[in-house]
Amino acid sequence: MLFKNISVLNENFTVDENMYVATDGAVIIYIGKEAPQLDYGRVIDGSGKLLMSAFYNAHTHTPMTLMRGYGENLSLEDWLNTRIFPFEDHLDSNAVYWGTMLSMAESAKNGIVSSSDMYYFCEDIARAVEESGLKANISRSIANPFGADVKTLASLDEMKHLYENYHNTCDGRIKIDISLHAEYTSNRETAEALAEYINLIKNTIMHIHVSETKFEHEECIKRHGMTPAAYLADTGLFNVPAIAAHCVYATDDDLEIFKEKGVTIALNPVSNMKLASGMTNVANIKKHGVAFAIGTDSVASNNSLNFFEEMKVMLLSSKIANNNPIAISAEEALEAATLTGAKAQGRNDAGAVKTGNRADLIMLDMTVPQLHPVHNMANNLAYSCSGSEIVMTICDGQVIYENGEYKTIDIEKTIFEVEAATKKILRKL
Amino acid sequence: MLFKNISVLNENFTVDENMYVATDGAVIIYIGKEAPQLDYGRVIDGSGKLLMSAFYNAHTHTPMTLMRGYGENLSLEDWLNTRIFPFEDHLDSNAVYWGTMLSMAESAKNGIVSSSDMYYFCEDIARAVEESGLKANISRSIANPFGADVKTLASLDEMKHLYENYHNTCDGRIKIDISLHAEYTSNRETAEALAEYINLIKNTIMHIHVSETKFEHEECIKRHGMTPAAYLADTGLFNVPAIAAHCVYATDDDLEIFKEKGVTIALNPVSNMKLASGMTNVANIKKHGVAFAIGTDSVASNNSLNFFEEMKVMLLSSKIANNNPIAISAEEALEAATLTGAKAQGRNDAGAVKTGNRADLIMLDMTVPQLHPVHNMANNLAYSCSGSEIVMTICDGQVIYENGEYKTIDIEKTIFEVEAATKKILRKL
Repeated sequence: MLFKNISVLNENFTVDENMYVATDGAVIIYIGKEAPQLDYGRVIDGSGKLLMSAFYNAHTHTPMTLMRGYGENLSLEDWLNTRIFPFEDHLDSNAVYWGTMLSMAESAKNGIVSSSDMYYFCEDIARAVEESGLKANISRSIANPFGADVKTLASLDEMKHLYENYHNTCDGRIKIDISLHAEYTSNRETAEALAEYINLIKNTIMHIHVSETKFEHEECIKRHGMTPAAYLADTGLFNVPAIAAHCVYATDDDLEIFKEKGVTIALNPVSNMKLASGMTNVANIKKHGVAFAIGTDSVASNNSLNFFEEMKVMLLSSKIANNNPIAISAEEALEAATLTGAKAQGRNDAGAVKTGNRADLIMLDMTVPQLHPVHNMANNLAYSCSGSEIVMTICDGQVIYENGEYKTIDIEKTIFEVEAATKKILRKL
Repeated sequence: MLFKNISVLNENFTVDENMYVATDGAVIIYIGKEAPQLDYGRVIDGSGKLLMSAFYNAHTHTPMTLMRGYGENLSLEDWLNTRIFPFEDHLDSNAVYWGTMLSMAESAKNGIVSSSDMYYFCEDIARAVEESGLKANISRSIANPFGADVKTLASLDEMKHLYENYHNTCDGRIKIDISLHAEYTSNRETAEALAEYINLIKNTIMHIHVSETKFEHEECIKRHGMTPAAYLADTGLFNVPAIAAHCVYATDDDLEIFKEKGVTIALNPVSNMKLASGMTNVANIKKHGVAFAIGTDSVASNNSLNFFEEMKVMLLSSKIANNNPIAISAEEALEAATLTGAKAQGRNDAGAVKTGNRADLIMLDMTVPQLHPVHNMANNLAYSCSGSEIVMTICDGQVIYENGEYKTIDIEKTIFEVEAATKKILRKL
């Protein structure tokens, strides 16, 4: 593909105008002011359009779109015990496949091309991701809240099967991460079994919930005499690159551990506010030099997959948490949503419009009122967009979404099957 | 117009399916399960669509779209003194007219049909609103921060001229409110002069900033021995229905004053977070039985005019401010954005899809991933929409926006003129 006369959001988050950008297969092969001397298939006139990196969702539970808006206005405990857990008890392959496909559709239209997922029925998730043309770091979440012997956990076998059969498949679009659900849903024996496994395979990423709520953080200190971050580091789970989701209550010492171990924090600003868990002081994370990416968490606690919204709420909540309107900048939000998210997923050749990188791109219509005037494009992107500006989403060089149409997903069938699978589960409750 | 086979969000915020809705001129004349026996101009097939009330923006400064994203990452003081005030010094009729038209375009696409505006150059604002086909409660904001003699304030004459010549024009689309900017930007003499004027004309609404920041709230107590709300009530400014914008730091006693005086609070959740002013405890406002609507505040401190986003951030920030995930419901957010906003503007025949009401309507495409599954439509609307679902915005029975096209606004010219007016001002700075 060749884009001509297009504005490009570059690695400094400023705009280069009237550019040519060429892709070949999955890769960006040319960016420049002059027309490249090559033959291309499709030529796209980029007048009035902006090309930028797509987004990388660093923490989500993809199939939970099925529970969108299910049981609001309940306490966290009632919500989990009377709605989410009973619903999840009746999930099957078909429901998970279609729930994932719905997430892929919503992600694509909002410019998210890759998701760090933590759930179960992972082969069904992988199948939907593969067919959608998007990317995911899929992890089979391991928990044994009732303290079952780790040797009897079927989930561990599922995890190994998944890693052995799916890691780095589809030209690397699908990666398998290893996930302990959290400190509070497991015991030390389980954590150490996972640490042993990652030590063996090495080439993976650890994905885990850390200090999402004050209660969780404080209970861990009571149980182990250590914060969740310190405990998890102690078990060896941070001996591979890791994504620590939430970290609302991470202490200065915890942040030093993350810095030393190369852990990336996945901020989940909307979910943390919606569940009244708290607001993360991102300025403090910055001060400690810890990498931070952005996650949506699941649709059940968000209730959307929209990175423009997520960036804005991240900026807003950081300003409040730090009691400082200049706690964090639009450029830092954009970097978290693109480059840092890609790196956290082990996608080092992605997250910026750069020659040699994967062609994970979104094209925005700039002829819309919310993008004018242009005092500073980064500010307009992070604060004024809603996602409706996206006219094209490209993943590994393949057009996934264009002008309201899905190229790889049958959206009508997906919505039909999601409604049918949801109703089938509700009838059993 | 006749809508057929359409889903309607009713006054209880639940959905009636397969309905007929008919409008005649500016008014909804029929809602029912049976086809009405009347002749209609345009017939709209509503299959897969939802019809609901449009939104009423209870606090904004419309022309400030011109300063979108101008001077982020500055302290509030630096932002105002080095960017906003110098820019505003160079505003003229042309810039204000086009800035307002841009606001109208952005509002229309996001389903906002009416805005409670507080600014100056009000005749230019009125001209743009009139031509756009939308509605506004326009107020000429009165301030005398340097304590000038109230008799010398030209703004008071402008205010009276505006009221006498524009109030309830355009079939009531344009209303003129009276506005004291705030306690901290005026003296008692000025407040009382306005109170005298509203006592004379009676048929208006008072629009005023109240307790936006902790500093403002506390300084007022030092100056007057009273909170801003108590002081303003004491001056007589609440002797007509009023919109009190922000009220982040309103006390229980203040809320009792609002309740007694019939004051509606205009929440501005995005702006309050962006400027790190604070988060309003909406659950406490509810407890006192005070009406609350929603405002965007100006684009300069938001930076968009998007009521789906504003509802969601209102819900999120209320949950955090109350440390309670069930502090406020989706239905309450929808009511604040529609019915309560309309009433606060003195538009008692608006804000709900109801026979006899003004036809201020938005039609949403329900065949999008973010609106499925439908466990509860109110939850999906308040938490999962971004504004991109809106395929039609109707104000007083006139189609303003449809499928990405503006029927009353020349969007290309508006963007061109906004960019030109902005650059002209920047050259002078």
